[in-house]
Amino acid sequence: MKVKAVSSNRKEAREYQTPSSGLFFKVKNVLYEKKSKYQKIEIIQNDFYGRVLFLDGLVQTTEKDEFFYHEMLVQPALCSCRQPERVLIIGGGDGGALREVLKHSVEKAWLVEIDQEVIRACEQYFPWLEASLSDPRAELAIADGFDFIQKTKERFDVILVDSSDPVGPSAILHARDFYFKLKKVLRPGGIIAAQSGSQLLHLKEHGQKAKFLKKMFSISRFYSAPVPTYPVGTWCYNFLSDQIDPLKVKKLRIPAGLKYYNEEIHRASFAQPVFFKQAIR
Amino acid sequence: MKVKAVSSNRKEAREYQTPSSGLFFKVKNVLYEKKSKYQKIEIIQNDFYGRVLFLDGLVQTTEKDEFFYHEMLVQPALCSCRQPERVLIIGGGDGGALREVLKHSVEKAWLVEIDQEVIRACEQYFPWLEASLSDPRAELAIADGFDFIQKTKERFDVILVDSSDPVGPSAILHARDFYFKLKKVLRPGGIIAAQSGSQLLHLKEHGQKAKFLKKMFSISRFYSAPVPTYPVGTWCYNFLSDQIDPLKVKKLRIPAGLKYYNEEIHRASFAQPVFFKQAIR
Repeated sequence: MKVKAVSSNRKEAREYQTPSSGLFFKVKNVLYEKKSKYQKIEIIQNDFYGRVLFLDGLVQTTEKDEFFYHEMLVQPALCSCRQPERVLIIGGGDGGALREVLKHSVEKAWLVEIDQEVIRACEQYFPWLEASLSDPRAELAIADGFDFIQKTKERFDVILVDSSDPVGPSAILHARDFYFKLKKVLRPGGIIAAQSGSQLLHLKEHGQKAKFLKKMFSISRFYSAPVPTYPVGTWCYNFLSDQIDPLKVKKLRIPAGLKYYNEEIHRASFAQPVFFKQAIR
Repeated sequence: MKVKAVSSNRKEAREYQTPSSGLFFKVKNVLYEKKSKYQKIEIIQNDFYGRVLFLDGLVQTTEKDEFFYHEMLVQPALCSCRQPERVLIIGGGDGGALREVLKHSVEKAWLVEIDQEVIRACEQYFPWLEASLSDPRAELAIADGFDFIQKTKERFDVILVDSSDPVGPSAILHARDFYFKLKKVLRPGGIIAAQSGSQLLHLKEHGQKAKFLKKMFSISRFYSAPVPTYPVGTWCYNFLSDQIDPLKVKKLRIPAGLKYYNEEIHRASFAQPVFFKQAIR
């Protein structure tokens, strides 16, 4: 599905979720607008969603609904992990995933974001990013995620892939080779959680991914959650591990202060509708 | 939340989901446009969603995603009911709920729709409505739902409330008095399933409803499902009964040919996120 990116004007910002439909946001203020080396970065103010970050015209984060996405990218893996000491986040320059990781008693969390300008913009407009980066356990690396994992000497208990969608420039972060390299830097008992795209829009990509992931990991499960501003319904994630089955964890280590995730949501998020089961068969 | 209804023009149809945001659809054709006694009825053709029905500017049904909503309004109740012989649908003039009911071996299904013009428009553009109405088990009544249940001598095994949202003219179909009357026409062992609005947008209304429903029915549970074109994320439903607990049904009677609902979705749909539990406490 080709998604056309359309930038905001002074009155309205739009996200084309398909070539013929999408979301519109009335723009109260344009807070930030810059073309970085990698992409067009825009942050607008909207009455309902608050601050909204667009990268190349696609909604990444809104103040109102980011908790759905960030809790569900991070918490199922972190809460299932026996001892999450060293955590790697690939992408996620808006800092929401890092904030969620730091709710656990980790030793160290790396945030590997390719675009310095995204960090600059979000530090200014999403206060949780600055707070998270000033935590002594956090380490920021401005680097290409693929390069980083090829070069790093570190090994990780949890790796979170907070990439863009499985179409376009981020397709490489959804391919077999990338997961092969991730697996090499995972500690025994480690877990990978990765955003995987829209349940309905990226059905074909989910099917392709399912095929190689189940050969690569003993436990390979899709899970899902709603993210109101993400394209067309429910959002999907991969949970990957050679030892930890998220449906057999006896005691989830759930930190205080969450708004979406809890024990019953954990279990429910792995349920799959008929059409999705058929696509990943 | 006041939602402003905005009608389609020849190029684009819009749904304001909040006063400052919503969905847009490119209009390939305007197929139907009429102001009935009750509301403005429009059906447009869109490349991604197919035919889209708007009532007073709010999306009711799209060919692409109606199965999420209709299966989840109907199947949890019908599949949980011991012997669903007589089924009442209040609202639902687009026929999606009726189609789902008729997948079961019911004796009779009543469709009570207030607006004759909605039936006429949908018979022309949503082929499942005509097919369902021509089933000898189906009976159409053009009537106000509230009036109908006050006057009927029938008693029902399942009642499905396929109304508009809990704000505006349909608010009466979400109030205590209406449920009190529904309960009177329910057979022993009967079940009511009712659409309840957006999880995030109608939090206050869910809280108010939860209070009186749990006094009125031995079993009163919310469940939810995604409906991509319904406002702001996940959609909520009420499951009400004095005898049947949907989480304790041993054998769900699931008909063939469904696209969304299955046994694991049934159980998962009753899970509630943290913020929702707080709102209905």
